[in-house]
Parts: sequence; C-alpha cells; structure tokens
Amino acid sequence: MAYQHTAHVRVRYAETDQMGVVYHANYLVWMEVARTGLCTEMGFRYKDMEKDKVLLAVTEATCRYLSAAKYDDEITVTATMTEANRRFCAFDYEITCDGRKIATGQTRHIFLSPELRPVRLPDKYAPMFGLS
Amino acid sequence: MAYQHTAHVRVRYAETDQMGVVYHANYLVWMEVARTGLCTEMGFRYKDMEKDKVLLAVTEATCRYLSAAKYDDEITVTATMTEANRRFCAFDYEITCDGRKIATGQTRHIFLSPELRPVRLPDKYAPMFGLS
Amino acid sequence: MAYQHTAHVRVRYAETDQMGVVYHANYLVWMEVARTGLCTEMGFRYKDMEKDKVLLAVTEATCRYLSAAKYDDEITVTATMTEANRRFCAFDYEITCDGRKIATGQTRHIFLSPELRPVRLPDKYAPMFGLS
Amino acid sequence: MAYQHTAHVRVRYAETDQMGVVYHANYLVWMEVARTGLCTEMGFRYKDMEKDKVLLAVTEATCRYLSAAKYDDEITVTATMTEANRRFCAFDYEITCDGRKIATGQTRHIFLSPELRPVRLPDKYAPMFGLS
Repeated sequence: MAYQHTAHVRVRYAETDQMGVVYHANYLVWMEVARTGLCTEMGFRYKDMEKDKVLLAVTEATCRYLSAAKYDDEITVTATMTEANRRFCAFDYEITCDGRKIATGQTRHIFLSPELRPVRLPDKYAPMFGLS
Repeated sequence: MAYQHTAHVRVRYAETDQMGVVYHANYLVWMEVARTGLCTEMGFRYKDMEKDKVLLAVTEATCRYLSAAKYDDEITVTATMTEANRRFCAFDYEITCDGRKIATGQTRHIFLSPELRPVRLPDKYAPMFGLS
Repeated sequence: MAYQHTAHVRVRYAETDQMGVVYHANYLVWMEVARTGLCTEMGFRYKDMEKDKVLLAVTEATCRYLSAAKYDDEITVTATMTEANRRFCAFDYEITCDGRKIATGQTRHIFLSPELRPVRLPDKYAPMFGLS
Repeated sequence: MAYQHTAHVRVRYAETDQMGVVYHANYLVWMEVARTGLCTEMGFRYKDMEKDKVLLAVTEATCRYLSAAKYDDEITVTATMTEANRRFCAFDYEITCDGRKIATGQTRHIFLSPELRPVRLPDKYAPMFGLS
C-alpha cells in the first residue's frame, strides 16, 4: 500500500489565462486529480467512499507558485499523505514540469457525512489510511 | 410574469485564456446565470425546484461567437424562454457588451428526477412556465 | 496524415456539479482537448501555430447531451475535421463512456491574427489541413 | 484611497460540485474578483496596469474553509491589502455568507513583466499602493 501517487496532466487551453500561463486556481484541480489517484493506490475508489456516505471535504488548501505552467505542458503532480486519523487527513503535493519543480501545495481535509456533518472514518477504510 | 431576464456579469480574469479573450465555454456559464435569474422572474427559485426533485438538465447547447469579450468587460446576457411543455423547455440568449451583440445562444432542457429519469413538470410549476 | 483523433479524459471532481454529473460546459473543454490532439496528428502543435501568429478562434460550438458523465468516468472524445479552407475550419466530436455515446458536438473556427483580425492560413500549414 | 474592498458574488451552478457545495478552488476566483475591485478602489484598473506591462502574478494562495457555500448563495468577499513594496504585495480575504464567515484566505504576489520577469512597480503606481 502506497501513500504517494504521481498523476500526469497536460495543460488545457481552458486552464490558461490572458497572462499566457495557467490560472493559479487550476493547480488545486490538479492536486485533486493526484489525490483521486492516490485514493485508488491506497486501496479504494474515492467515488465508492462517497457511496459509503463518507466525503473528504477540503478545510484548507495552499499553493506556492515557483514558475509558470503553460498550455500543452506535461505536468506531473505527486500527492503524498502526510497525516491521518479517524477525523482528518492531510496531503502534500509537488508539481513539476520537465523535471523542474513549479509549485508545491498542501491540503487538509475532514470526513463528512452527505449532510456535511463530521463523521469518523469507518473501520472499513481505516487500514487504507494506515490506521488501526 | 416575464419570460425574459437580463443578467449582468463582469468578466473575471479566470474566464480569460491565453488568446487574451474569454474562453468560449464560459459563455455557457453566463447563460446559466441569466437562466437562474429568469427562473426567479418566472416565480420560483431554481434551487427550490431541485428541492422539489425536479432538475432542469441541459440536452443541447449552442453558442455563436460574433466578437470577443475581454477581462473586466461588463457583459449583459438576456435569456428568453422560447418553448415549454411538461417534459421540455428551451431558451434563447443574447449576449452584449457595451451595446454591441457579441454572441447568441440556445439551450434545450428536459425535466429530470434526482435519479436522472425524465419527469413531468409538477402542477405547482406549470403556470410559472405558462402552462395550464 | 489523419484528420481524426481520439483523446481520453478521466472526469475530475471539479467538473461535476450538484446534479451529480458533469457540468455541461465542460464538454466543450474536452472537445478542445481532442482538438489539440488532432492538431498534433495533423502535423503541428497548436501552440506553435499560435507562435506563428495564427489563432484558431471558435465561432460556433454546439453540444447535444445524450446521457450523463459522472466523476471518475473514463471518457473518450473523438474529433474529426469536417471542413477546411484558408479562412475557416470545422470539427465534429463524438463523446463516449464505456462504449456508450453520451454526447455529440460541432465547432466552427476562423483563423485570426493575435490582434484578432481574420487571416488566411499560411502556406506552411495548408497541407496539414489537406489544402493545396 | 482605500486598501479594502468588498465584492459581491452569487454562487453559480457551474461553481458547485457533486458534494452539493462550491468546489473549493472557486474561492480563489472570488478572491480575484475582490482583488480586481480593490485595484479600482486603489485608483487604477488592473487591466490598465497590464497594458502598462506590469502583471500581478500570484506566488502563494491559501484558503481556509469554515463552512460550505451553496448554489445561489449571496457571497461577500472583502479583500484587504496587507503588505506592499516595489517588488511584492499581499492581500487578506474574508468570505461571508448571510453575515457568517465561511472562509478566510491570503494571496501573495510579485510584479512581473509580460515576459514573466520580476519588475519594480513603476512610480506611476507607487502612490496607489501607498508607496512613495
């Protein structure tokens, strides 16, 4: 079981802005793409966890932009789980383009019910988050 | 009861692309903004119709682009209901900037249940769509 | 030289809306992803054509939605060039999910200068569009 | 001259996700809307500063999410300039809905040339940032 996953995205024209680079909010979407892949690697499809009535809601997101990403660039996003308990988890991200680091980020999450109330991570999922 | 509504949006930086103009898919979002306002003018909040388990799903969308919209432009979007029955409705859109027509569009919709099955528009809403 | 290209996208959480399906405007973004891939298959990178001061601006876009796409679905988008001359070109799209057709679309485009004035497609690119 | 501006946005359907709330990356777009308004209040249109070849590029963005925003909610976003010198500036954001604080955020920026190289803020703009 791995707590790290690397996703690949190619920059879409829709993701650029008139500065000629990727609009900064889109990096958070790429982090989500890597996080979805990481869930799969941790042993579950995130969409199935939602069907089990456990949502992974973002409580904090940060991104530091070191260098611009441009249209049609091949981007790699590595997501790493850095913390987890039955209420909460956190991830780090490293975003690179052609081997050069262009951004780093973090997200923090809580588990919520579909009614958006905090819930404990069910036993079924605990081992996948490295919890007993 | 009006079947026409004009909404105003100011172009966001996020909506531009590296061509220096608004990315074309965002016009469909502006149409949705005007459609939401039109629902209010027709006598209901669209979010309440969803709570009543009736969704207005898009089955077709078209946009013709006549002239570019740019960052910080003041855009007006006029939505007009052009057809409606208990299963289906359709809207026309005219998008202008500084009095100049920059795009026209159409959307067609069906009424769906939250399970995404076709439903008849409930009696409660029929008069608001001009139906008896 | 092919005038058809099939791209693969996995539905992002960001692309869904509260109906639980992909927000309709995002299909136009997927068409753009397939169109970018088609340009590569036609013999050029679209970003290089922009560096050569030729922009492919959308003048019309249509999408017909047959069935919903959902989060984490694997989507295929096939773009086919249907018309081209020195001023204009057009593409058809077929979007499928698990072998089932979920949408079809068309876009029409004109060639523009970076100042957004119509230009003739340069000789260099004509053969790639099947033009002499 | 004010270094604070409050913008109002109504949540668009496009901004929601299948959790039934606003997708978290869109808060960064709302911050940008408030920042654009703040520039105007500081005495310049940001689009004119770009014409003067000075871009305000994001180097860091953070958002803490306290409570969900939903479709059709009326959101207020207050942007406050917290730091500025000739190379750099920073903003704080408070996002509320019906008087309730739903998120806070920060962004940090550097001034760039259109070629994306760091530049000093020109004298013309210095007083507008409270600099002499």
